[in-house]
Amino acid sequence: MLITRLSTLSDNFARTLRALLAFDASQDESIERATADILRHVQEQGDQAVLDYTKRFDRVSAPSVAALEIERGEWLAALDALPTDQRKALETAAERVRTYHAHQRAETWTYTEADGTVLGQKITPLDRVGLYVPGGKAAYPSSVLMNAIPAKVAGVPEVIMVTPTPDGIRNPMVLAAAAIGGVDRVWGIGGAQAVGALAYGTQTLSPVDKIVGPGNAYVAAAKRRVFGTVGIDMIAGPSEILIICDGTTPADWIAMDLFSQAEHDELAQSILLCPDAGYLDEVEAAITRLLPSMPRADIIRSSLANRGALILVQSLDEACAIANDIAPEHLEISTENPDTWAEKIRHAGAIFLGRYSSEALGDYCAGPNHVLPTSRTARFSSPLGVYDFQKRSSLIHVSQAGAQTLGRVAATLAYGEGLQAHAASAEYRLNSTESKS
Amino acid sequence: MLITRLSTLSDNFARTLRALLAFDASQDESIERATADILRHVQEQGDQAVLDYTKRFDRVSAPSVAALEIERGEWLAALDALPTDQRKALETAAERVRTYHAHQRAETWTYTEADGTVLGQKITPLDRVGLYVPGGKAAYPSSVLMNAIPAKVAGVPEVIMVTPTPDGIRNPMVLAAAAIGGVDRVWGIGGAQAVGALAYGTQTLSPVDKIVGPGNAYVAAAKRRVFGTVGIDMIAGPSEILIICDGTTPADWIAMDLFSQAEHDELAQSILLCPDAGYLDEVEAAITRLLPSMPRADIIRSSLANRGALILVQSLDEACAIANDIAPEHLEISTENPDTWAEKIRHAGAIFLGRYSSEALGDYCAGPNHVLPTSRTARFSSPLGVYDFQKRSSLIHVSQAGAQTLGRVAATLAYGEGLQAHAASAEYRLNSTESKS
Repeated sequence: MLITRLSTLSDNFARTLRALLAFDASQDESIERATADILRHVQEQGDQAVLDYTKRFDRVSAPSVAALEIERGEWLAALDALPTDQRKALETAAERVRTYHAHQRAETWTYTEADGTVLGQKITPLDRVGLYVPGGKAAYPSSVLMNAIPAKVAGVPEVIMVTPTPDGIRNPMVLAAAAIGGVDRVWGIGGAQAVGALAYGTQTLSPVDKIVGPGNAYVAAAKRRVFGTVGIDMIAGPSEILIICDGTTPADWIAMDLFSQAEHDELAQSILLCPDAGYLDEVEAAITRLLPSMPRADIIRSSLANRGALILVQSLDEACAIANDIAPEHLEISTENPDTWAEKIRHAGAIFLGRYSSEALGDYCAGPNHVLPTSRTARFSSPLGVYDFQKRSSLIHVSQAGAQTLGRVAATLAYGEGLQAHAASAEYRLNSTESKS
Repeated sequence: MLITRLSTLSDNFARTLRALLAFDASQDESIERATADILRHVQEQGDQAVLDYTKRFDRVSAPSVAALEIERGEWLAALDALPTDQRKALETAAERVRTYHAHQRAETWTYTEADGTVLGQKITPLDRVGLYVPGGKAAYPSSVLMNAIPAKVAGVPEVIMVTPTPDGIRNPMVLAAAAIGGVDRVWGIGGAQAVGALAYGTQTLSPVDKIVGPGNAYVAAAKRRVFGTVGIDMIAGPSEILIICDGTTPADWIAMDLFSQAEHDELAQSILLCPDAGYLDEVEAAITRLLPSMPRADIIRSSLANRGALILVQSLDEACAIANDIAPEHLEISTENPDTWAEKIRHAGAIFLGRYSSEALGDYCAGPNHVLPTSRTARFSSPLGVYDFQKRSSLIHVSQAGAQTLGRVAATLAYGEGLQAHAASAEYRLNSTESKS
C-alpha cells in the first residue's frame, strides 16, 4: 500500500484515525539505566567522566575538557570556507529569524494604584543556556539558528553549544551556523555526558540554567532526568504535517509537501484532508509518479505507508474540526481565502496559509521557529521562542496606605486558613509608623 | 539552636550556604510504583477505577462518577454561608488577582513584509484545564483563586476542579472560592486517580489539556507521569523566603515575616541577609520573644532550626549577589530605596519592595500569583500566570512574490542538509502561476 485512504463517512473513521496518530512514546528501560549511570558519574567526577565517555562513545581522546573546546577561530574559518550561496542563505535565514523573534520579546511593566501601591512584572533573560546539537548526519545548521537566535534575542549573555565529534570529525556547516547564530562557546562533547556537564557543571564547564536542542534517545532521557536542576525545552516526538486543501493547489505541490515531512524519518506523519475525492486521486497519482525520483524514497515510502493518509472530508469546516483534534505540529491551509479557515483553528504549532506557504519555507527561513510542539501537545504548548529564554518576577511594592487595606484582607484570609503568622505579619503593618519598634 | 547565624566572611560560607539550601527531591520508589498502577487502572477501566480508589482512599462509596460531582448549588450555598468579612476578603482578593493578571494577557500579532508576506503569532487559550485542590487541612481557598483566575482570564472555557472529600467531608471555603474564582465544574475526587481521570478521561469525565494545582506526593508523581499527554504546572518544592534588610525595619516585623514562611511546614526555608550584626541580634531576640505565642510554634521552631539562617553580609550589594545565587521563591527587599536594590536582582519568583510589602500580602491579595518557582528554579521559570493557559501558533502566509526569494534560500539550505523533498517543495513555488498543473 502506498498510503492509506480514508473517508470521514466510514463507520470506524474516528477509531482508525486515532490508531494512525498513536505513537508509542514509552521509554526504553536500558537507555534509562545507562543514562542515569552516565549522569551520576558526571555529577560525581566532573571532567574525568566527560573525558572517559567521550573517548568511549566518540573515540576522541583529549588530555583535558579544555582541549575539547572548539575555538571561535575554527567557526569563522568554517564560515569563510562555505560556498557563497550557502553562506548568504544562512545569513538571510538568521536575519529573518532574528526579525520575527524580536516581536516576541517581553518587556517589564508596572502600574500604580490610587494609594501609591506599585505592582508589576519584571522580565529578565536567563544567565546561561546550553544548546545541544547532534553530530553526524542529523546535524542541521538550521537547528543551530532556530535554537540560538531566540536565546540571544532574549538577551541571554552566554549560549554554550555542545556537539559530539565522533572520530574527531567536526561539521563545518554547524560551526558556521554557530558563528552566524551568535553562539558564545562551543565544546566538542555530546551524549548524556554533555547534558550532565551542562546541568551540573564540571571543573571546566560552568552549569547552565536551561538546555535546549534535539538529540538521540540518550540525550532525550538525560534531559528528562536533569529537568528541575535546569530547565529544558520540549522532548520532541516524530515530526508531522497536516494539510487542508480545497483541491485547487497543483497536486504535485501537495504531494511534495507530504514528501518533505515524510523524508525526515520512518515515523514522520503526513496527512492530507480534502473534500474532493478526485483531487485525492490526483495527489495519489502524483505520489506514485514522483516518489521514484526522490533520493530518500525508501524513507518516504515507509513513512507514507505506515503513518500517512489521504482523507476525504465532507467539508472544509469538518477538516478544521479534525485539525483541532489532531493539533498538528505543522498545518498547511492550501485553499482560497485561507484566513477564513485559519480563524477556526485553535490548536497547531505553525499555520501555513495559502498555496505558496510550503512548510519547507518555514523550516528554514520564513522567520518563525521550526522547533514546534508535536504529538498533539500543541493543545497546551507553543513553538520555541524568546519567551523560553526570558522569565518573569512579580513586583509588589505596597505603600503604607495600601498596607492598611490589603493587610486587613490578608489577615482575614490567613486566619481562615489557620496561618496566624501570615496574619500577624500583615497586621504588624497596620496603623504603624516607619520608626523602629 | 534557634536559628543558624552565618557570616559571608567565614571561610566555609559558600559550602555552608549550599548545604543549607540543599533539598533532597529524590522520588520515593514505592510511591512511584503505586502511582503507576493507579494511573494504568484509570486509563484501562475509567469510571470504575475512579470509584474503586475513591472508596478505598477516601472511604466514599458512590453508585457512579456522576454522583461524585459537587453541584454548583452547593458552592453557592457555601458562599452564602460564609461570614461577611471572609466573603468580602475573598471577593476583594479575586478582583485584585483578576486585575493584575489581565495585564499578562497576550494578543495575536502579525506584520506584513514589503512583498506581501504576512508573519505573525496567533494566541489561543487552552480548551480545558483541570485544577487539583487538596482536601483536608492543606485545602487553601486562596490557592483555588490563584489557579482558577489566570485560566479564566486567559479565556479557558472549561476549568474543571477536583478535590478529595475524605469521609465525605467537603470544605465549604474551597467550594466558595470555586464559585468566586469562576470554576466551571467540581468533582469530589482526589489523589492519583483524579489526575489520571483528568489526563486520560473516563466514560464520565472528558480529558483536559493541562493539570495545575498543588497536591501530595502521589499527586505530584501522577502529574509527572501524565506530563506529555497533558501539560502540567511546576512540581513545587518547599516554600522559601529570602529577606534583604538594611536594619531599619522594625525587628518584630522581620521576625514575623520569617515565621510566616516557616509556619508552612518543617521544610520551609526562611533566610535573612543584613549588613548590621546588631540588627541580626535584635531579630534573633524578637524570634525568641515572639515564638512561644505562635499557634504553629513547633513547626516554626523546627523549620527555623533546620533550614533557617540569619546571615551577616558585608554590604547590600553582596546581599543582592547572594539573592541571585539562591534565586528565591519570595524575596523581600526591606530597605530604604528598595528599587535601587531590586534593579540588581535577576532571579526571584516574586520581589517584595519596601518595609510594608510583607510576603503575606502577596500570598493573598496584592494581585500577583502566589504559585511561584521554588528550589532555585526562578533561574529559568516564572510565576504561574495567564501565559500558562494561552499558547501560540506561528502564522506564515507567504505571498507569491515572497515565495520566489524565500524559496531559493530554503532550497539552498535544504540541499545543504540533504533534504531534497524540502528543496523541491520550495522550488515548485518558483516562477509559477496559481493555475493547477
